[in-house]
Amino acid sequence: MKLYDSVRAPNPRRVRIFLKEKAIEIPTVTVDLGTFEHRDPAFAKVNPLQRTPALELDDGTVITESVAICRYFEEIQPEPSLFGRTPLEKALVEMWNRRAELELFVPITHVFRHGHPGMAKHEVPQVAEWADVNRPKILEGLKLLDEHLSKHEFLAGSAYSIADITALCAIDFMKPTKTRVPDEMMHLIRWHQSVSSRPSALA
Amino acid sequence: MKLYDSVRAPNPRRVRIFLKEKAIEIPTVTVDLGTFEHRDPAFAKVNPLQRTPALELDDGTVITESVAICRYFEEIQPEPSLFGRTPLEKALVEMWNRRAELELFVPITHVFRHGHPGMAKHEVPQVAEWADVNRPKILEGLKLLDEHLSKHEFLAGSAYSIADITALCAIDFMKPTKTRVPDEMMHLIRWHQSVSSRPSALA
Repeated sequence: MKLYDSVRAPNPRRVRIFLKEKAIEIPTVTVDLGTFEHRDPAFAKVNPLQRTPALELDDGTVITESVAICRYFEEIQPEPSLFGRTPLEKALVEMWNRRAELELFVPITHVFRHGHPGMAKHEVPQVAEWADVNRPKILEGLKLLDEHLSKHEFLAGSAYSIADITALCAIDFMKPTKTRVPDEMMHLIRWHQSVSSRPSALA
Repeated sequence: MKLYDSVRAPNPRRVRIFLKEKAIEIPTVTVDLGTFEHRDPAFAKVNPLQRTPALELDDGTVITESVAICRYFEEIQPEPSLFGRTPLEKALVEMWNRRAELELFVPITHVFRHGHPGMAKHEVPQVAEWADVNRPKILEGLKLLDEHLSKHEFLAGSAYSIADITALCAIDFMKPTKTRVPDEMMHLIRWHQSVSSRPSALA
């Protein structure tokens, strides 16, 4: 088994944190996005979509999509559970993981990819207006999480889950978009400090 | 238990098809998106994100996000399985469901919401350039599926799954974007005829 990984990008980090929480160690191949190594024909054979992360199993099967890779590890090593245990827990983890993606991670990514000069060769064409439209959506996403976290310790309730990993990676990726969590969002800040203090956050 | 549902919109249809495949019948409340019933304060109490579908459980818990609702039903009634059985199957269903969403459903939705005059009051502001940028992405997404389906009966392999439901709802939603599956994509067309002929497709 082999994980194709990249530094700095938020999606590979989701998988690294997930593995750290599970205390799973596997061989890693670093793909350098900065020098467009993911566009190399050699890597395109691994993942035709030319993105990281990608997990190659010993029989050659390749799993892509961060959450699909995480789900594979959840199934082969259920403890500690990061996708929920009961039907309702599993549904709420799925819901909050998707909310963290759709309401927060997506607008952050779009502001970054369409608004950052360094991404001009990665995102063709960049649509400046699309970056502008997404900027206020980041704040709305943060508000949704802050309000929810005023009543819950973690996103999906009382247990840390993949939804927290997604939201953490999204928020830590706000830096290059020159946006930040407003000081008054104290519940979100409390949660961010809590999940950032876990050893896995260093991944 | 009560499902808030809407006609014509593709996401509520994903849940309806899923329930039909499971032969699960539950009471339904229709929320009319055309008259902005989803923006009503009464519905905002059910789902603050003001979107359908939403599933209200008997204890008042509300689950939103189509896939989260489907996952809840998969967990309380596992047969027939629509999320896969083994760890690898579950990972591949997750992967192909996400690919169908990210590579196909998302560009179709963006072309529709940002390019269709009838959506001007729903999507504020509409970004015409964003619709234009997404139009060729629909074709790329279709190609990805066509190529994969040249070697597999269904998206996640040999069994029908939620990934097929997502792709079916996406493709059937291409009509208002004035795009269609090119005639030469014979594998995708074969698959589309097959999944459309299931009784659940009428949902």
